[in-house]
Amino acid sequence: MSAVNIDLLNDRKKCDFNVEELTNYLDGGVRETNERRKIEEKVLSIKGLFGQEIPEEYLSHKEKYENAIRKAVLFYKVFNEGNGVNGDIGKARLSSMFKSTLPSAVFKEASPFSLHFSMFIPSILGLADEEQKARWLKRAMNMEILGTYAQTELGHGTFIRGLETRATYDLNTEEFILHSPTLTSYKWWPGSLAHTANYCIVMAQLYIKDKNYGIQPFLVQIRDEETHMPLSGIKLGEIGAKFGFNTVNNGFLGFENHRIPRDRMLMKNAQVLKDGTFKKAPNSKLTYGTMVYVRVNIVALMSKHLAKAATVAVRYSAVRRQSQLKPGEPEAQILDYVTQQHKLFIAVASSHAISVNAQWLWNLYDKVSQDLEVGKTDDLPELHALACCIKAVCTADVSYLIEKCRLACGGHGYMLCSGFPQMYSTATAACTYEGENTVLMLQTARSLVKSWEQASKGKAFSPTMAYLGDKTPLTKWENSVDGIIKGFERVAAGKLRLSVASLKKYSKSGLSPEDAWNSTSIHLVAASEAHCRVILLSTYKSEIDRTSSSLSGPVKRILSQLVELYVIYWALEKLGDLLLYTTISETDVQELQSLYEDLLFKIRPNAVGLVDAFDFRDEILGSTLGAYDGQVYKRLMEDAMKSPLNKEPVNQSFHKYLKPFMQGKL
Amino acid sequence: MSAVNIDLLNDRKKCDFNVEELTNYLDGGVRETNERRKIEEKVLSIKGLFGQEIPEEYLSHKEKYENAIRKAVLFYKVFNEGNGVNGDIGKARLSSMFKSTLPSAVFKEASPFSLHFSMFIPSILGLADEEQKARWLKRAMNMEILGTYAQTELGHGTFIRGLETRATYDLNTEEFILHSPTLTSYKWWPGSLAHTANYCIVMAQLYIKDKNYGIQPFLVQIRDEETHMPLSGIKLGEIGAKFGFNTVNNGFLGFENHRIPRDRMLMKNAQVLKDGTFKKAPNSKLTYGTMVYVRVNIVALMSKHLAKAATVAVRYSAVRRQSQLKPGEPEAQILDYVTQQHKLFIAVASSHAISVNAQWLWNLYDKVSQDLEVGKTDDLPELHALACCIKAVCTADVSYLIEKCRLACGGHGYMLCSGFPQMYSTATAACTYEGENTVLMLQTARSLVKSWEQASKGKAFSPTMAYLGDKTPLTKWENSVDGIIKGFERVAAGKLRLSVASLKKYSKSGLSPEDAWNSTSIHLVAASEAHCRVILLSTYKSEIDRTSSSLSGPVKRILSQLVELYVIYWALEKLGDLLLYTTISETDVQELQSLYEDLLFKIRPNAVGLVDAFDFRDEILGSTLGAYDGQVYKRLMEDAMKSPLNKEPVNQSFHKYLKPFMQGKL
Repeated sequence: MSAVNIDLLNDRKKCDFNVEELTNYLDGGVRETNERRKIEEKVLSIKGLFGQEIPEEYLSHKEKYENAIRKAVLFYKVFNEGNGVNGDIGKARLSSMFKSTLPSAVFKEASPFSLHFSMFIPSILGLADEEQKARWLKRAMNMEILGTYAQTELGHGTFIRGLETRATYDLNTEEFILHSPTLTSYKWWPGSLAHTANYCIVMAQLYIKDKNYGIQPFLVQIRDEETHMPLSGIKLGEIGAKFGFNTVNNGFLGFENHRIPRDRMLMKNAQVLKDGTFKKAPNSKLTYGTMVYVRVNIVALMSKHLAKAATVAVRYSAVRRQSQLKPGEPEAQILDYVTQQHKLFIAVASSHAISVNAQWLWNLYDKVSQDLEVGKTDDLPELHALACCIKAVCTADVSYLIEKCRLACGGHGYMLCSGFPQMYSTATAACTYEGENTVLMLQTARSLVKSWEQASKGKAFSPTMAYLGDKTPLTKWENSVDGIIKGFERVAAGKLRLSVASLKKYSKSGLSPEDAWNSTSIHLVAASEAHCRVILLSTYKSEIDRTSSSLSGPVKRILSQLVELYVIYWALEKLGDLLLYTTISETDVQELQSLYEDLLFKIRPNAVGLVDAFDFRDEILGSTLGAYDGQVYKRLMEDAMKSPLNKEPVNQSFHKYLKPFMQGKL
Repeated sequence: MSAVNIDLLNDRKKCDFNVEELTNYLDGGVRETNERRKIEEKVLSIKGLFGQEIPEEYLSHKEKYENAIRKAVLFYKVFNEGNGVNGDIGKARLSSMFKSTLPSAVFKEASPFSLHFSMFIPSILGLADEEQKARWLKRAMNMEILGTYAQTELGHGTFIRGLETRATYDLNTEEFILHSPTLTSYKWWPGSLAHTANYCIVMAQLYIKDKNYGIQPFLVQIRDEETHMPLSGIKLGEIGAKFGFNTVNNGFLGFENHRIPRDRMLMKNAQVLKDGTFKKAPNSKLTYGTMVYVRVNIVALMSKHLAKAATVAVRYSAVRRQSQLKPGEPEAQILDYVTQQHKLFIAVASSHAISVNAQWLWNLYDKVSQDLEVGKTDDLPELHALACCIKAVCTADVSYLIEKCRLACGGHGYMLCSGFPQMYSTATAACTYEGENTVLMLQTARSLVKSWEQASKGKAFSPTMAYLGDKTPLTKWENSVDGIIKGFERVAAGKLRLSVASLKKYSKSGLSPEDAWNSTSIHLVAASEAHCRVILLSTYKSEIDRTSSSLSGPVKRILSQLVELYVIYWALEKLGDLLLYTTISETDVQELQSLYEDLLFKIRPNAVGLVDAFDFRDEILGSTLGAYDGQVYKRLMEDAMKSPLNKEPVNQSFHKYLKPFMQGKL
């Protein structure tokens, strides 16, 4: 390891808390830190995964895929052992793989097998009956087969009922006939589907004797296990190059009257008997479970991407010197510019806030899952409403903040070797997959409006919406964390009240309920966001309070400074709302701005320590700008020299094109 | 051409204004539309520029560069003729090339020769003396030599005085010795520099007899004209893969005591005589001219990128049907969802607003340039302050809105064949190049504070800041375009007043002026943005009023609806500011929200017509989602089939890696 940059070294000396203690806290305990490090060490020491001669970004699209498959088999062989996948198949264990930062470090974009773990196996767990599980789960866990999950179609995403792929039951042969009647019915988007997976969960419209029984899941073999050729009646291919995820092999899939045995419909919920009798699922809400599970994991993973971006930006800002704060002085660390602190510290705090909220949501999911096992579904709607808005708001916030971090690093942040562009293209994808964000916000709004209306008839709000029933007047504004959260509660309640009033107004004017909903939708999204801000702010605050009691004073202090920074940042961002719905005054606002600037000043000496505590190894960070040693310029030049264009002083295009052109001989 | 999608067809029928009339207005006249179309037709009919078998996005980094050079010589041969470059070398003509959307259409990312026109030639025009111009300009215009402009260094960007590259005058040989003393002094970033250009303007610290004379420009040959080999003492290479601009060949350049003749220093302003006498430039402000020129052009180009994004998103939203507005109805065009209109119509309006502001700024630049010719520099500071904040705010707005358009198209917007990712990576780059946005905002703030302080001593404000001196109380809020603009003026004045007060408070408390400035910088940026919003809103309004009198009623109506939409959108975005600094009431806010929704409703039937009026040919748009015929799904599938991965049913990686892995034989 080369010498550490002197400015970074000095900044580390300034840090007043125990970095390792904070790392352990963020990991969930000393044991968790050690386990994570052990798996990381194991994976990072695999030969052939890191430091290839020509980095990914110089390869062609096809080479990128082939290289990803080469790495994937090396990686998963070790990673699965490290994660004890063989044998242990609980969702919690899968989830810890989901949240791992190792795949994005190994593949730069994402793993070509990721859908196998994030969707294929969870679907078998959630949708297959016991016999089917016995037959398929072990093979899937051992990766004897590779699967994916195909729901979205070329012309259909959000509106699941609109899917066109058909599964028609043939009583004579006891088979389902899968068919894609149109171009728009082609499955489109699933990762691994193009050239990697040989099995696939297919969501299709079930037809028995010309009657439609809605969308059902089918486990379909799509390629021969020996030759990997697509089976007959199955058309496969990739959908083309994308903003990111180019290693993921997103594909399309079309059926031409392809037949599968009856037992390939996953029958934990609904069933089709041999004679064509359809047995309904006992509870239609059960399918929510997997959706919520995936969204909780996305939120957790998002906080990691943001932590990476913050690490790179803060370290670079400690190393980078630019302009003079005072004439004659040496150029200043850009981290000393208040505008830079304003851009970066909120990224650090948001990573904490989102991580804490993800963990809280996971615990709730866990509780609700246990309830479901005994048939209790009461809390599922609330969980679903929470997962919708938290997924939407957090993916949007993280995407925004990663870009803010990148832009704060100036031109160098635009280099792929900074790692930022890949972090952004990975994060922003989550704004549209697994539920488009605006659609999700409106789902939460639907739930809020329903609760509001039921409350007006005397029904109690669910726990996370209970604040909406608080009728005590908020006469005196208070510039404290709790005071601001109270203010946000009033904003959410106020926006919801206005939305409900607008719905009523439109209905009275003769609009159908649906048109009234559409006409009010801008407000409904705003109400949904306001509710989500209440949850994010209050959960962050209360969970830090709840879990930090055994920490040392300095760590406790920095954690609560970040909570305060986060809450005040959002108060200042949403000032218009607070001014409309609370009694905050101009003087209060000015005081908040001062408090915010004080916090930047207090956090500044601990900034590098805070990002060090995220404990990303250089290989996982994958950034010339953010490495632990801060040797930014050396790394940038070394990385540039890896470009194949730099292997020759004169490119062939000079002789072929440039020279004849410049000499007028073209 | 295939049949037009029926929904697009119906939407075109709904349009109530003459699309061609609006196109002519946006182009600046019928003649301008015809000229543009003629050049486009000429370029688009060049064989080998479009429709290559394997699209750019599938090529390797090196292949992308080589392909770009292949195209560049074909393109510029025709484009230069079309633009009458030979002979006519005015900045206005160059500027029209700068703003052309043809290069981004041809190269997907950007032209490898772009710096030649945007920086190299303008620098010769602005910095060379008459003798130098006579020697170099014609060769450059005819592209007998290819140039670029090297200022930024690996460790130095914003702070030009901190550049390390040295040019030491050697009296004995009458030469300058160029030298890069450190790694951080390597020139880094210039487009074309790596393997394309053979000449370069180099900004370096001039030393004569050990005395420093500041940064001066040198015209340096870097490669041999016959062999293209780097000259001795010159190290060249590319800086590596980036978020975008990968066809641009950004490079690094280091000098090892490389000697050039004395007459290679560009001497229009400062001069070095044979005997080493240094003659100062008559006016240090003269160098602002080129910076302003480049920034004005960036703003103009940004409006085009945004117009492209809006075109794709609006057309796709007319074609895409998703979910039912009412049960049993066919799925709705997503353009009928109010949340979608909220995302897209502001993009259309912003493109108009930014285009209008760019034209206005260009006229101002033109006037100030003529003044400069006769030695009058009075208006230069105002122009500079305007160009700084308008460049910063418009690049940020456009980047944000392009992403909004992309995300509004769901998953399909993430495909490279949608065109969005390339538009975004191109636009966002402008947030950090040619002046990092925060730095630029603070430069405008500097000018605002200075004017404010001078005004307090009785000096008049410059015309575009005159509103800051308006002391009449704004007692009654008015929900009109003019009323809102008046409100924004109060916001800007209020924020500036607070900033100045904060500077004073910090100074009084003992801080140096520089530390006070840093401590106040968040507010200063906010004041600068508020000022810029006043300019953007009021210029958009007044210029549309001024130039639209001869238009037909329907076109005039839609233009003024867009002005209104834009102004109200920003009022609602900046509600906190308006509530703090004006007398706007809660009722006014609710009325504004209703007015905004009414405007969405009114604009809806004209939405497709509005983007048709931008008149982008399909080849220029380069989007499967946005083509004129709306055959979205057909184009997506056709495009996917071009992927080299789709040429074989089974990829080789199956046999090499996947099969042994799945069969446990790895």
